[in-house]
Amino acid sequence: MFPDMEKVKAIKLDKEMKVSELVERMKDAGFGARKIGRASEIVEKMFDDKECKVFFGLAGAMVPAGMKQIVIDLINEKRIDVLVTTGANLTHDLIEALGEAHWHCDEWDDEEFHEKGYDRMYNVLMKNEVYPMLEDFFEKNWSEFEECDTIRSFLKHVEKLLPKNSNSILKACVENDVQLYCPALADSGIGLMIWGRKAAGKEIFIDAFEDMKEIIDFSWTAKKAGVIYIGGGTPKNFIQQSLQFSKGADYGVQVTQDVEVGGGSSGAPLEEGKSWGKLKKDANFVDVRCDATIAMPLIFS
Amino acid sequence: MFPDMEKVKAIKLDKEMKVSELVERMKDAGFGARKIGRASEIVEKMFDDKECKVFFGLAGAMVPAGMKQIVIDLINEKRIDVLVTTGANLTHDLIEALGEAHWHCDEWDDEEFHEKGYDRMYNVLMKNEVYPMLEDFFEKNWSEFEECDTIRSFLKHVEKLLPKNSNSILKACVENDVQLYCPALADSGIGLMIWGRKAAGKEIFIDAFEDMKEIIDFSWTAKKAGVIYIGGGTPKNFIQQSLQFSKGADYGVQVTQDVEVGGGSSGAPLEEGKSWGKLKKDANFVDVRCDATIAMPLIFS
Amino acid sequence: MFPDMEKVKAIKLDKEMKVSELVERMKDAGFGARKIGRASEIVEKMFDDKECKVFFGLAGAMVPAGMKQIVIDLINEKRIDVLVTTGANLTHDLIEALGEAHWHCDEWDDEEFHEKGYDRMYNVLMKNEVYPMLEDFFEKNWSEFEECDTIRSFLKHVEKLLPKNSNSILKACVENDVQLYCPALADSGIGLMIWGRKAAGKEIFIDAFEDMKEIIDFSWTAKKAGVIYIGGGTPKNFIQQSLQFSKGADYGVQVTQDVEVGGGSSGAPLEEGKSWGKLKKDANFVDVRCDATIAMPLIFS
Amino acid sequence: MFPDMEKVKAIKLDKEMKVSELVERMKDAGFGARKIGRASEIVEKMFDDKECKVFFGLAGAMVPAGMKQIVIDLINEKRIDVLVTTGANLTHDLIEALGEAHWHCDEWDDEEFHEKGYDRMYNVLMKNEVYPMLEDFFEKNWSEFEECDTIRSFLKHVEKLLPKNSNSILKACVENDVQLYCPALADSGIGLMIWGRKAAGKEIFIDAFEDMKEIIDFSWTAKKAGVIYIGGGTPKNFIQQSLQFSKGADYGVQVTQDVEVGGGSSGAPLEEGKSWGKLKKDANFVDVRCDATIAMPLIFS
Repeated sequence: MFPDMEKVKAIKLDKEMKVSELVERMKDAGFGARKIGRASEIVEKMFDDKECKVFFGLAGAMVPAGMKQIVIDLINEKRIDVLVTTGANLTHDLIEALGEAHWHCDEWDDEEFHEKGYDRMYNVLMKNEVYPMLEDFFEKNWSEFEECDTIRSFLKHVEKLLPKNSNSILKACVENDVQLYCPALADSGIGLMIWGRKAAGKEIFIDAFEDMKEIIDFSWTAKKAGVIYIGGGTPKNFIQQSLQFSKGADYGVQVTQDVEVGGGSSGAPLEEGKSWGKLKKDANFVDVRCDATIAMPLIFS
Repeated sequence: MFPDMEKVKAIKLDKEMKVSELVERMKDAGFGARKIGRASEIVEKMFDDKECKVFFGLAGAMVPAGMKQIVIDLINEKRIDVLVTTGANLTHDLIEALGEAHWHCDEWDDEEFHEKGYDRMYNVLMKNEVYPMLEDFFEKNWSEFEECDTIRSFLKHVEKLLPKNSNSILKACVENDVQLYCPALADSGIGLMIWGRKAAGKEIFIDAFEDMKEIIDFSWTAKKAGVIYIGGGTPKNFIQQSLQFSKGADYGVQVTQDVEVGGGSSGAPLEEGKSWGKLKKDANFVDVRCDATIAMPLIFS
Repeated sequence: MFPDMEKVKAIKLDKEMKVSELVERMKDAGFGARKIGRASEIVEKMFDDKECKVFFGLAGAMVPAGMKQIVIDLINEKRIDVLVTTGANLTHDLIEALGEAHWHCDEWDDEEFHEKGYDRMYNVLMKNEVYPMLEDFFEKNWSEFEECDTIRSFLKHVEKLLPKNSNSILKACVENDVQLYCPALADSGIGLMIWGRKAAGKEIFIDAFEDMKEIIDFSWTAKKAGVIYIGGGTPKNFIQQSLQFSKGADYGVQVTQDVEVGGGSSGAPLEEGKSWGKLKKDANFVDVRCDATIAMPLIFS
Repeated sequence: MFPDMEKVKAIKLDKEMKVSELVERMKDAGFGARKIGRASEIVEKMFDDKECKVFFGLAGAMVPAGMKQIVIDLINEKRIDVLVTTGANLTHDLIEALGEAHWHCDEWDDEEFHEKGYDRMYNVLMKNEVYPMLEDFFEKNWSEFEECDTIRSFLKHVEKLLPKNSNSILKACVENDVQLYCPALADSGIGLMIWGRKAAGKEIFIDAFEDMKEIIDFSWTAKKAGVIYIGGGTPKNFIQQSLQFSKGADYGVQVTQDVEVGGGSSGAPLEEGKSWGKLKKDANFVDVRCDATIAMPLIFS
């Protein structure tokens, strides 16, 4: 490791510096800054590698936190082949596509929020009245969904019903033929809407396992694979298990605040994936332990 | 808050002290120790409250980490009404029920593990050969599963096929009529087994949303509710969203190492649930920020 | 690593189980539980090794959190040779030795606490009136301190003035000839008391570097060394730098919640010390990432 | 809190975007991004407030991680009145001022590093040979230091001996009359150099408490105060205790990865300071839980 040793260079800020320049300089610094720089470089490489299929796992509630547009732009720029996300992200994406918003709060009183009809996600609020709006949307359009038999097809039908110019991850995926998976859709607001119709006696049968075929096939046949994980949870793990059927990822970038020592999949370092065959021996990868809302704008700048 | 103020008392250890005594004394100490003591007390209260239905969310990979028996004992002692867990926990539970084991490792070389056929989860290993064992199990018994149309019914059929005296969370749930949910079963080794059969052309049709009916109904009709979350992820969130249809939980204990500031459901403090109506205004609850493998034996001692 | 591989065994609780039994069983479990078990074993070994000098670094504010007695008992049982701690711990130790207490709070309103005269340390409170009590103590006894020229000698003079039967870390150290260091005493309530006298024109001259001689000498001449770090900060680092003059520690146990990725000394894994020569190549050590108030009663049970 | 509620706006990246623009947009996003935006705004306000004295606490090992220049620039631009830092930062600052460097490492083998003479700080290395260089520096120049009787005066004498054009935090402080404090200098490489001379029989007496006078005086007389904490430890706590003699800080920005629940000063939220009178009731402040090497370039852009 010694021949290539490079010096740490102190970051010199200047008022006119572009984000992309800062990220380059961060690579010359140490600790987490170094990792942001390396992550940006690895992401670039995996995007530029024509043989590489890019799997993007987006956990948490990144949409209410204002990270939606970064994901949409990556999709529109054809950077991503597969997006696996939470029902939460898709629900909030739908809420915004239907015209509602999320709100800042820098202090909180949860009892007061409850009385006033606000639901809190750390320092972001959602109005409780989005639920009747979602109810209306699904109730009114339910006939459209009756034929759906997979989660993927259900989501595609949701997309068809979105307002024309809505700005949405779901829409971007459909328009750009990005494979969109949401294995735990039941665990979300959209899941509740499906439950609501079922509870009211409407018939719909959506298979819980059918979507696995396509993602595993895709993983199996990919010459090369790159993974980007924003948070852990089901999105990361669902991609990781598909990669057991690949040759192992060639590139990897993970952004998480979860701890490694807890033993969970969410906080596990990418390196651990080598034991499982999910990551190649000589893969190019980095773990960034950082708030995703801070790291994402830097890494994808 | 001042009238009831109690003094911090230093913990005095002694060689003969029982775990339950230590936990009681921890309540007199500060910081995390205090919370362990309070969690134990709240858990006791929710178990003793005859009107209270207990929802237990078990995330991560607690089975390979040796936490299985604590959960089994809680089930056998009729402490829990609903268990929501990950596919990972159920897969490892099945692996152990079928006679395989997990192994310690205090140091790691993931490339070597890969060559030798070990899959690592932090400081625990699994032999890769468990996969053919699982393949055999499902392949041989597949006809049993063909009628299953929900995740819950699928799991019940798995249980029927377990060796007689196997010690398993799944078995304990079935034997004690504990409702067992696993909304993201697709995202696990068992999910891969189902995929494998489907990929081989076998027919099975398992609904992704059907199980929501029962848990939401149960939540809706419960006079009182108590929640215990070991880790976050889908298990916690799936219970939390069901509670939106309840009167709000009366008791809550959460053990997690995830951070609050990340904005994710996994790290969110229980207090936040008040804004959503998932936790009652005057609920008795505590967040324990600790490795679950350390906190669980103390809290349930 | 494979010949010795041991199975993970699930922890089975029982009502009569002693803490020491639980800790033994934790060693058979995974993740953090395993580490608690190993830490306990390593601590035992270093205590039993007659050639080993034990350096104990106690950071943070462990005294107000009720951890005082565990440290006192270790000192009284002659387990520790050197104790390095924060001014905070010594200040709170003195406050309790002088008859004052710390208090629980499970909820907080810092503005209200301020008005009522309470100072908060997470879920522990101290009354603001301890300051005049400390003022009195030092003002009244100041002539005793005028000859002190090192931090160690100053602390020994404080001890002489403690009430006869007071239960205190400081007292235990003096009575058992444990070397007590507090390199950042200026950064604490006791430091403020010294400042107060100096500001009032009283003369005292305490050397900032003199105490280094003894600890480095001790480290230099120790046949073997063992380190126990409860938290990081100055206590850990001060021991670590002394060990650069030793043969490297033979045993090490660290309990911390600080992160490794931040690059600070507090969160650095013990392994990192090998590069510096602070830890021997074949040392027996473990990092426990856990709230110290939870881990300490287990490890020292 | 409701009248002023603002919408979360998704961050839209573009290739030409300046860092300062990104930080502004981050304020419109949620979770940690929001806090980076707010921190930048608060820092700006405290810098612009003519009545406000700025106290900057710089912990950890920010110099080897490439953060030196940001601090130097803040000093040169007269943004800071008081800098409290660790001996580690000053030692690394001196090492670089004397011409040595720090080095990247993205993987590690601490035993090999030890053999090759590298000391590791997470992903940054220092050559062990800096120690003889420091020895030479102090040995050669020792007569200069003999009159020093405070840590501050000692550091000023170090500065006088630096190469003319060296780029250094220490130099910048002296040149700009910024008060520089290092209460735990004994706990650092420079401390070891002082010890080395003392051990060799050279006389020097440096008072451990004298520097407190000036910082407390300054805090006492400041019309307004602003605090910036990069990490916790002694730098933060030393400023915090000085503020007990002020009217309470009017502005505060804290960047830390330490946890709140541990009860330590390093991870304590600024809000907690209100109970102690260290922060004003109506202060403008924010806690940023982030790797400082990522947050600093954004906040000070």
